[in-house]
This record gives sequence, C-alpha cells and structure tokens, in this order.
Amino acid sequence: MTHTARPAPPAAIPPGILCAADYEALAVRHIDAPTLAYIAGGSGAETTLSANLRAFAQWQIRPRVLCDVSAGHTRVRVLGRAWAHPAMLAPVGWQRLVHPGGECDTARGAAAAGACFVASTLASASLEAIAAAGEGEQWFQLYFQAQRSVTLDLVRRAEAAGYRALVVTLDAPVSSPGRRAQRAGFRVPDGVQAENLRRYRAPDLPALAPEQSRIFQGAMRAAPTWEDLHWLLTATTLPVVVKGVLSADDACALRAAGVAALVVSNHGGRALDGVPPSLTALREIRAALGAGYPLLLDSGIRSGDDIFKALALGADAVMVGRLQAYALAVAGALGVAHMLRLLCEELELCMALAGCATVADIGAHCVSEARPC
Amino acid sequence: MTHTARPAPPAAIPPGILCAADYEALAVRHIDAPTLAYIAGGSGAETTLSANLRAFAQWQIRPRVLCDVSAGHTRVRVLGRAWAHPAMLAPVGWQRLVHPGGECDTARGAAAAGACFVASTLASASLEAIAAAGEGEQWFQLYFQAQRSVTLDLVRRAEAAGYRALVVTLDAPVSSPGRRAQRAGFRVPDGVQAENLRRYRAPDLPALAPEQSRIFQGAMRAAPTWEDLHWLLTATTLPVVVKGVLSADDACALRAAGVAALVVSNHGGRALDGVPPSLTALREIRAALGAGYPLLLDSGIRSGDDIFKALALGADAVMVGRLQAYALAVAGALGVAHMLRLLCEELELCMALAGCATVADIGAHCVSEARPC
Amino acid sequence: MTHTARPAPPAAIPPGILCAADYEALAVRHIDAPTLAYIAGGSGAETTLSANLRAFAQWQIRPRVLCDVSAGHTRVRVLGRAWAHPAMLAPVGWQRLVHPGGECDTARGAAAAGACFVASTLASASLEAIAAAGEGEQWFQLYFQAQRSVTLDLVRRAEAAGYRALVVTLDAPVSSPGRRAQRAGFRVPDGVQAENLRRYRAPDLPALAPEQSRIFQGAMRAAPTWEDLHWLLTATTLPVVVKGVLSADDACALRAAGVAALVVSNHGGRALDGVPPSLTALREIRAALGAGYPLLLDSGIRSGDDIFKALALGADAVMVGRLQAYALAVAGALGVAHMLRLLCEELELCMALAGCATVADIGAHCVSEARPC
Amino acid sequence: MTHTARPAPPAAIPPGILCAADYEALAVRHIDAPTLAYIAGGSGAETTLSANLRAFAQWQIRPRVLCDVSAGHTRVRVLGRAWAHPAMLAPVGWQRLVHPGGECDTARGAAAAGACFVASTLASASLEAIAAAGEGEQWFQLYFQAQRSVTLDLVRRAEAAGYRALVVTLDAPVSSPGRRAQRAGFRVPDGVQAENLRRYRAPDLPALAPEQSRIFQGAMRAAPTWEDLHWLLTATTLPVVVKGVLSADDACALRAAGVAALVVSNHGGRALDGVPPSLTALREIRAALGAGYPLLLDSGIRSGDDIFKALALGADAVMVGRLQAYALAVAGALGVAHMLRLLCEELELCMALAGCATVADIGAHCVSEARPC
Repeated sequence: MTHTARPAPPAAIPPGILCAADYEALAVRHIDAPTLAYIAGGSGAETTLSANLRAFAQWQIRPRVLCDVSAGHTRVRVLGRAWAHPAMLAPVGWQRLVHPGGECDTARGAAAAGACFVASTLASASLEAIAAAGEGEQWFQLYFQAQRSVTLDLVRRAEAAGYRALVVTLDAPVSSPGRRAQRAGFRVPDGVQAENLRRYRAPDLPALAPEQSRIFQGAMRAAPTWEDLHWLLTATTLPVVVKGVLSADDACALRAAGVAALVVSNHGGRALDGVPPSLTALREIRAALGAGYPLLLDSGIRSGDDIFKALALGADAVMVGRLQAYALAVAGALGVAHMLRLLCEELELCMALAGCATVADIGAHCVSEARPC
Repeated sequence: MTHTARPAPPAAIPPGILCAADYEALAVRHIDAPTLAYIAGGSGAETTLSANLRAFAQWQIRPRVLCDVSAGHTRVRVLGRAWAHPAMLAPVGWQRLVHPGGECDTARGAAAAGACFVASTLASASLEAIAAAGEGEQWFQLYFQAQRSVTLDLVRRAEAAGYRALVVTLDAPVSSPGRRAQRAGFRVPDGVQAENLRRYRAPDLPALAPEQSRIFQGAMRAAPTWEDLHWLLTATTLPVVVKGVLSADDACALRAAGVAALVVSNHGGRALDGVPPSLTALREIRAALGAGYPLLLDSGIRSGDDIFKALALGADAVMVGRLQAYALAVAGALGVAHMLRLLCEELELCMALAGCATVADIGAHCVSEARPC
Repeated sequence: MTHTARPAPPAAIPPGILCAADYEALAVRHIDAPTLAYIAGGSGAETTLSANLRAFAQWQIRPRVLCDVSAGHTRVRVLGRAWAHPAMLAPVGWQRLVHPGGECDTARGAAAAGACFVASTLASASLEAIAAAGEGEQWFQLYFQAQRSVTLDLVRRAEAAGYRALVVTLDAPVSSPGRRAQRAGFRVPDGVQAENLRRYRAPDLPALAPEQSRIFQGAMRAAPTWEDLHWLLTATTLPVVVKGVLSADDACALRAAGVAALVVSNHGGRALDGVPPSLTALREIRAALGAGYPLLLDSGIRSGDDIFKALALGADAVMVGRLQAYALAVAGALGVAHMLRLLCEELELCMALAGCATVADIGAHCVSEARPC
Repeated sequence: MTHTARPAPPAAIPPGILCAADYEALAVRHIDAPTLAYIAGGSGAETTLSANLRAFAQWQIRPRVLCDVSAGHTRVRVLGRAWAHPAMLAPVGWQRLVHPGGECDTARGAAAAGACFVASTLASASLEAIAAAGEGEQWFQLYFQAQRSVTLDLVRRAEAAGYRALVVTLDAPVSSPGRRAQRAGFRVPDGVQAENLRRYRAPDLPALAPEQSRIFQGAMRAAPTWEDLHWLLTATTLPVVVKGVLSADDACALRAAGVAALVVSNHGGRALDGVPPSLTALREIRAALGAGYPLLLDSGIRSGDDIFKALALGADAVMVGRLQAYALAVAGALGVAHMLRLLCEELELCMALAGCATVADIGAHCVSEARPC
C-alpha cells in the first residue's frame, strides 16, 4: 500500500460532476484503495451503512405547483447564528489521508461556501492551524480523553483559537477501522497524525486481568459518563453540542442537562453496526423533543434531496462526512466548496418544486412514506 | 455522437411485436444511444422513474367469470367529447430526434388510432404544421414563457390552428436533461429545434448577484404562479387542462380556479426526482376530488393493464409518453397507430376478463393491492 | 425447431430426483426449448406466474412436537368419493408435445398413484382413448365450444366414456401462447392435435367490422355466460366443477347455481396476467363460503409443502399442472406416478412434523404469515 | 470425494479473523466440499435456513450514550448454574467430519472459553470420551431411540459420565441429509461413526405394507410422543431440556410437564423446511410463558449482535451450531475457544453501546424493528 501513487490534486473541478454524489464516484481515482475502504466502509457487517441510505429512499417529496418562490433562500439560524444554508461539514479525522492540504483546505472550502466547519480532535492538522486557515465559523469536535486534564486542555485551546462551539462525540467509545478497511490493509501512514494529541502523553493503562473484558474493563473504563458531561458543561462557556444520539430518552436527558444542540447520528454507520438509521431516529427524537430545540442530522446525506427530507422530518441542519472527504480528495478546497454548492442547489430545487421558499416552510407535510416494495 | 447512423424507418410494422411495450425493446435499434438515454432516462437518481413502474406492479386485477361483454367497448368522454378509447398521447418535445417525420407523423398515427394528440410547446414541428398533419382532435401543450406576450401569442396561434384544449404543464419550471443523458453526451442536434419558439426573441435575463440562487432567483423567477394561471383562464376560451399535479390540495385549488381537467403526472420521472409515483398520487387526488371531475394519469403507462389499473383507481383517461416516441422511432405513423391499438387490445382483454363491458364498469373493486414481497 | 431431437424417454426414474420439483429441472433435457417455453411460461409479463410461487413462500408451517401420528394418512373425500391423497392432475392439453405416450401415459401414472386425472378438451388423445388407458377415476375438462351442439356432444361422450365429473374452465375465453413461447418460436407441431375436436367443423365466424373489437366482438362473443352454465347444469347428470375462479362473489354465485365444487385457479399464470395469486384468492373465497363446500386449489403447487399450505388455507385438494407435464416428459407414466408419490411424501412430512395425522387436522392454525423482507 | 485432501489443521489461529463469522468464510479451505454442503446446507429449499438469518437482520439495536458500564460483564445463570457468558455450543454430530480431534477438541475449546458443551447422541466420539476431554460443564443431547432400553442406557451412561443435563431434541423425528448435501455427494465416511450407538443393535423394522406411508407408518412409528417424554422425566434425575420448540402451545405444555428449559430452535433450518425463523418463534414463546422460565435460542446465531438481539427478545442464552463446526475445522480446540471469545466480545460491544452493563439490562426496549425494504 502506498499513499503516493495517486495523481496530484487537480487545480480545478473535473468535468462531468453533475451532482454532489458524483464526488463519490470520482474519488476512487484520487484515494488509494485501502484508504477508500476506510472512508467508504462502515463497522461490522455494514448494515447500518446501507440502512442509512435506504432510510432516505423510503421517503418521497411532495411537489406543489404555481408557488412563488422567487424570493426563496436557504438561510438558517443554528445556535443563534445565521448560515446561508443548512449544510455543515461533519468532523472527519486524518483528512491528510486523502489530500496534502488536509483539514486546512477543507476549512477554506467550507468558508468559501459559507458552511460551518467542524474540526476533529483527530484532525491531521492542529486545531490552531485549522482555525487560522478558515475564515468562516468553526466548531471543535471533542473526544473525551482518558485524562480530564487533557480534555480540558483541548477545550481551552479550542476556546483560545476562536472555535464557537464544542461538538462532543459520544457514540464511539470503542472504535477501530472497519472490517473492509482492515481487509484492505488500511493503516494510518506515518506522515499522518492526530496533530492535536501529539503533545499529550498517552496514559499508562493497567493490564486487564484474565477474567476482565477488553470492552467493559478496557475501552469503556475511559468512556465518558454523565458525570463527565456535567463537568464539561461547567468547564466551558462555549455551547456544547452532543453528536451521536439515536435515543429519544437520551435526547431529552441531554437537553435537560444543558446541551445546546444534538446531532442525531450513527457516525455514518461507523460506530455500532446494526443500530437504526439516523433518519428514523431523527423522527423519534423530534417527536419526543417537540419543536424549537436544535437538532442536526448526520449519517446518510448524499444529496440535497436528503437534506430536504432531513429538514422535513425535524432537522434544523445537517452534517456531511464522506462527501466532504471525497470532494477534498478530488479537488481540494475548491472541490469542497463546489460540492457544498451542488448540495445547496439540489436542496433549492427540492424546495422550489415543493413550494418552499424558506426552510421554515419545509415540514412533515412535504414528504410521504413510500410503500415497501 | 451522430444522429445519422441509425437505419431508415421501416415501411411497415416489424415482426415480433407482441405487446405495446415491445416497442421499447425494439427502439434501441432505431434511436442513437445518447438520444435513447435522454428519452428513457429520468431526472436525478431515477428513483421516480422506477417507482412509477413499481406502483402499477403492486396492484392486481380481479377477474370475473361468465360475464357477457360481447357488446363491450372502450369509449370514453373527456372534456365533453367522445373518444374511442382512453389512451392519449402525452406532449413529447423534439420528436424529430427519433424520426424525420417527427410530430407530424405521430399526429397522423394518433388520428388513425382515434387518439388525442397533444402537441408540445417544444415540438420540432410548428403547431400549425402539426395541426395540418393530423386529422384527429389535437390539444396544445403550453409552457408559460418568460414574457406574457409570447405566452399569449402561443395561445392565439393554438386557437387559430384549431387545437381544442390547452394543456399547461406546471411540474417542470426548472428542467434540464437527466444525468443519464448528459453522461451519454446527449445534446439536441442542430437540425432539431423548438419550432414554435423560433420567432420569439429570448428575453434578456439580469445577471444573478453572487448571493442569489440560480434556482430561486434564476429559473423560478420566470416560473408561472397562481396569478399567471388566473390570467390564462381569462385569456382563452379553450378549456385549460393542468398537467403535473401530484398534490390533492393543488388539485382542489386548480379545480376551484376553473381548470377543466388535471393530468396527474410526475413528468415521467423527468421533473423532480424522488416524488411519489403518479398512480399513488392519483388515488389521493381522486379521493380528495370525488367522482365527476376529469382526471388523466400520465407517467408509467407501459401496457393496457396499466391503463386498466389507472381507470380503476380514478383516472378517466391516460397519457402515453415514452411508448409514443419508441413507436414513432420504430415504425413512424404506422408504429404509433399500431402501438395504440395494442394498448387498447390489452385494455380490452383486462376489461373482458374482469367482467367490464365499458370503462364505467371499471372501479376500485376491480383491483386489489399485492402484498409487499 | 424440431420435436424429434430430444432423447427417448427413459425406461426408469433417472437418479438424482430428490423432490417433486426436481422434475422441473430435469425436464429441460427432455423437452425442446420452444415447447418448454410454452409449458413453463405464463401470459403477459408473467407477473402472476411468479406471484403464484411467492404467495406460497410467504406462509410458514408451524411445527409441533411429540404428536402421535403413527396412524396418519392423507386420505380425502372430494365429490363424495375417497382418494388416497389430495393431489390431482390438472387438465393439461397437448401432452404429446412432451412424450409420445401423451395423456394416456399420464392417466396410467395417475391411476398407479391413486390420483384423479382430468382429461383436457384439448388433449392430444381422444377422451375415449384416455378413459380406456387409465384405470382410475377420471374427470373431463370442458371448454364451452362456439356451437352448443358441439359442447353437448363432448358432454355426452364424456358421460359415455365413464368420466365422473365435468371440470368447466372459465378463466380463458381469450387465450394464446404466451410471449415467451411465441418468442421461442413455439407452435403445436403437425403430429399433435386436439383429438377430441377433430370431428367437429369449426364454425364460420363473421368478419369483424372496422370499429369492432377482436376481444369484445371477437373472442368474447363465443365466451360462455351464466346462461350457458345454467344450461350445462341441466344438460348433464355429472357433477359440474368450475375451474378458474378468483372472486369470492363469483364463488358464491357459482355455488348457488348448483356447481358441485370450485377450482380456485389463475390457470397457472396463463390466463390474464396481473391477477392475484391463487393462494391469496383461496383464502378470500374460503372465508366467503365458509366450511364444507369443496374447493380445489390450482396454480403454483410445486411441492408437498405447497399442498399443506393450500389445505391449511382452505383447500380440500389441489391440482398439479406443470409438474405433471415435466414428470411425463422425463419418465412417462412411471415419472407421473413417482412425482405424485414424492408430492405425497412431502405432504406427509409436513403433516407429521406439524402434528397432523389426517388432512382434517390441517387448518389455519398450522401456518403463519412471514414478514415481508 | 475424499476426506484426506484438506490441509492439516493449523496449530494456531489464522490471521485475518476479525469476527466470529469469519470462521465460516475460512472453513471452505478446511472442509471438503460435500461435507461443507452437509454442514452449511439446510433441508428442503433452504427457506428456513435463510429466514433464520433475515430474522436477525430485521431487528436494530438501540444505542445509549454516557452509561457507566465499566463494571459490566456477561455472566448468566442457566439451570441454576453460573456461566461467564450466554453462548453455548449446540449439539452437533459427527464432528470428526471436519477435524480429527472431533468432539473432544471442541469440548476442550468450550471449557477454555467457559462455554457449556452439549455432546450429541450422534457424536463421532463416545460420550464417555467427550466427558473425559472437557473440563467444563457438559450436557448430553438425547435422541429417543426406537428401543426404550437403548434410550435408558444412553441416559444412564450420560449420568454416569457426569453430564449435568439432558437436551432432548424433538424436531427431527424424520431426518436425512439435505438436498445440497445429497447433490454434492455427501456421505458419512467409513471412519466416522456415531460412537455412542455402536454397541446397540439396530431394531428389526417390520416391512411397510404397500398402502402404508414411509413417513407415518415408517419413521414416525418410532418417534417420541408425550408418553415417552413423561417416562423420561421420571427416569432421570438430571434436568431435561427440550430442543426444537417453535410453538407457544408446545412450550406451555412442556413447562407444565416438568421440562427444565426449552431451546427454541428449528434445527438450524435442517429439520422441516418452511417453518418460522427461530427468533420469531422466540418472541411468541416468551410472550406466552412470561418471564422467568429458561429459554435458549438456537438457529441463526452468527455474531454477538445476534446474541444481543436474542437476549433482548426473550432468550436467557443461545446455542451455536455451524460456527462451532467451522471454528473446529479451521483451528481445532483453539479455534472453538477463539470463536467463542469473539462472539462474547461482539456481544459486549453491543451491550456497552446499548448501555447494558449486564444481561439483565438487555430487554425489548433495547431493540426496534426495521422497516421492510
């Protein structure tokens, strides 16, 4: 496996990209096979990976005629701030796997497209470098670290670098590359590191006793609990967004705890396999929370049509993971910006033909469930 | 891509055509690949294109025994006029793409088969030439043009040429060839034009500001609104039929506005992708409107069985798009007439074996829903 | 196409037949391709052909433990007579297409296996020859002929030859080989004829006027009506069974008219395509008729499991069409008897493991519906 | 067919096994094709074989966040004894077909992994040898023999050898290798025998009269009835577990009769084909029995996710059949232990991410049903 054989990133958008999803098809020419297996694949048997996509396909958009949408726009407010559109970039680590510009280029593309960029704890550029690269608003994605002091240092650095929110990911306390990636021989190459964590020394982990579990007494010993979340909420003045929620009970408890917003997500089918598709969970969670509380949808967005459906079923905005990596791989910052623009135009087309001049007009009445076939 | 390599149209019906749908299989020999991609393809991911077909497959016909149908016929009345059968030809533009005789030949075939022909605004022959070619009744399909004066001129020309109704298509204010066609390299060749529009100068469109949307402030700025429809209804004495309705609310409002009939249609899966299949929408719309108001079904008709199901679920007649183009490509006017005759015999067979001597006998009791499998 | 190239029928059961359905797989070696297309195929798009099979697959058998079935048997009474098992041979015409012994050999196989044989009006041996060949009980399948005198003569011949019931097929007043057969070039070869009809002169049919329908004023003019059925019921002392019923309303009316039993059937998917599967119709019809009235199930039986499910859902016996032709083709009379024995053992296995010592023990409680998948 | 051509069993776990199910993929290199057809295949058309797997796929696991499971474990109590985890080894006969160590090696692997091993009546090692090989707790699977004296002798030998429970299998009174195996030419090779039964002389079976059934008067004559079960319950002091129950009525009657526990099972799709999947039956049976009565689930377990779902839907523990044979074939006793460890870690991961620290926390609220697609 070599990461050097792929062609140099193009200086411009390649021809033939007709929709945002086309970046996925093109990415195969720009990402080496093991890395593509890592990015495209999911956990376990990839049940959730495919269920995420099917969940969108089972909803249909109800078009309307003769509506005047000539003043239409896609502007949204999330966490009190205005965005040109509801498409955000999900936290994606190690972006230098697919492009030498890595997260810094993605952040530039996001800024150009007016999209929020969420820098990962596992970014292959430091959060400070990313913050300097992107002119737009950025959020910082936080993984709780085994030592609270390290977690706190990451928070302080994010605050200092100007990040405007913390996105705490909670659905992956146990994580490893999926089987597809492992079978393809994927490993993070030497030149790509989690730059944010280089300065911290990994904690010494006690060896497990024979009867102890690598899951329960191993990985889960360091996993965050409600107590950790409560601590974090008092430790920072930034709004805390929780990512990785699929349960309505969890959603209610998180709101009650003071979490500013939730990202309904199954980590793109990369955390526990076999869980419900994100879109299904979104409906349940919105029904439990009622209107008003900010919900983002992640996992399964491949088009503006998907964004429309997510908004119709209760999301205020969405996060885009894989497409982000593909667009970066294909055309760098320019590709990221272009992909986002395509997504938005796809969303606008759905809105226009469904008679929705603004995202506030998009509701459950705009979609219907398809018959199983 | 060349449009000249295909064989000359045959002088007669080729052997081996056992059903109307066989024209689709044969068309591949008579239509060049890019054009076939344009005609056969749908918009977006072609979800609706396939959903249209599946929607018919999920209904079953309930046969009856021992009924005397020896006096049976398929005659219908639509807009106060009698037709030998309920199969009409949907408006299809640029028919010279597939046959040099274009719309004029199709109109001749329709007349021979006693079918209503609907001439498209985007026909590759002028509406006057088409009216002169076909002896049967014709309707004119109208796209609202950016300048009302142009729209009005089209209406006056249609009235003058003897068209008996206007079919206003409302589901495609934003339109472009689908991805399949674009990937196949399709473009309308130089010798094929929208003849009806040649005399009008395209309006000067103001450039979009950077923050403006190509959808909302671009294409949708010129899209017709309710005000435009109200104007049209007063501007012509012809009955106005609206095509492209999928919403029961829209249907009720259109009827209240004075529209004479509706065509439940998703443009054959060529307008917004991801919308409900036409047959599903038909049921909802008929349920909302009750009996009596004329409803036509377009999108998905590939056989007389499909016509039977559409009538059973509330349609008064149907429109046939792709099969029309395929039959024209394969055997010119003769092919169109033959395809229509096959459709009617297929319908008659369903009626005879379901114990329906007339289309008035076809109702919801004649079909049942298949179990998902 | 030649009908002589196939190997001579074997003198014994070929090895490797593990279940009745294996005759279908083996038949491809013994039946020429066009004829196989005719036998295996269905009408139209073969929707009903496949739906018949899927309908059985959606039911599951509920096994029971520890039941004493050591005195078990499959005996049934139908039309007042006792049979060793509920598997009958459906009327299948032109059996010499697949084996020189034709219907006479099939009748011998049926007699050997204790199965009722139903001789077709379109048999390639005369009803008198068939009656002489088979020692077991036989029924005669009657198609109403255009001239009532011919129909009556067939009835009198059947009575004279010793047939014990008339099976009137009503679902195919319009019939022709399916598309698969036509595309394969199937035609009935010169040496194979409908022997029963040779002696009758075909009636002179009036030419159709241009506006008349080949269906309504053509084929359906000679189709039987209720009046014809009432006449038949008075014209014969044989019990009259009606085959080809899918409607509960028809079923009730036929019982009221004096019909002795019904065969719920869609002609093996060979009559109108797109109708409900026979098993689905069986449930509805049994529910409408209640217990006690004899119902047979035809169309879709490929195994003893299918027979078990048909009995559980309301049938008193079943008819087997295609498997009969396959077994005859593969191994003549011996094959027919062997196929029937395999079917019965498959049924017995289901009964034994479902705790049913007799067919009277088989009921709706013995099956459950599978979840759509 | 030769059983000697396969490579010698490895001395260690082969690389590349990422999950328990990977043993299935690897087994093809270690098991000759006819034997693999025997092990992997099911009865009949293998409908139940595939339905078992689909039944698990239709359930989704509901994850929870922030739960403290650092004290988590998978310990269960079954029949009054404590186990480290709920994965048991189902009775599988003739294990020397796939590995020279046969059941003794499997028992060693089970002991190493803390799993209950169930020795089959049809084991290719004697129950005494197996008992001596495995240090862990073992149960003995009992097939009722045609002569009660033989059955009793088997029971006494099992008691004497230290087995702690009898598992009476009731779903296979009629049994033979499936069609896949027969078509592949499978037969039990000379060197592999049912060692437990060698000492008993097969009873002389009376020949069947011509009108008698090989099923009813043949195989089922010797099948156990309720009377036999009652006798067994008085004949042994060991707890009696019944395996092969799919009916809630049977389950209630078996509990009332004094059976200590049930194994809901369709014999891995190897008994009657076409019966409900085990997971579906489990829900019904648990609903009928209420909480508290021990239920095991067999048939369809391929992963720890499946175990989680089985526990959520009412099982106290599960039995693993095919994976056991595959792991033995691939890596002997070590493979069996490793496969069990992988299963448990997969289960632990589900538990951890679903917020379940113990199996008592796993309930119906932890899963949801997926939409048919």
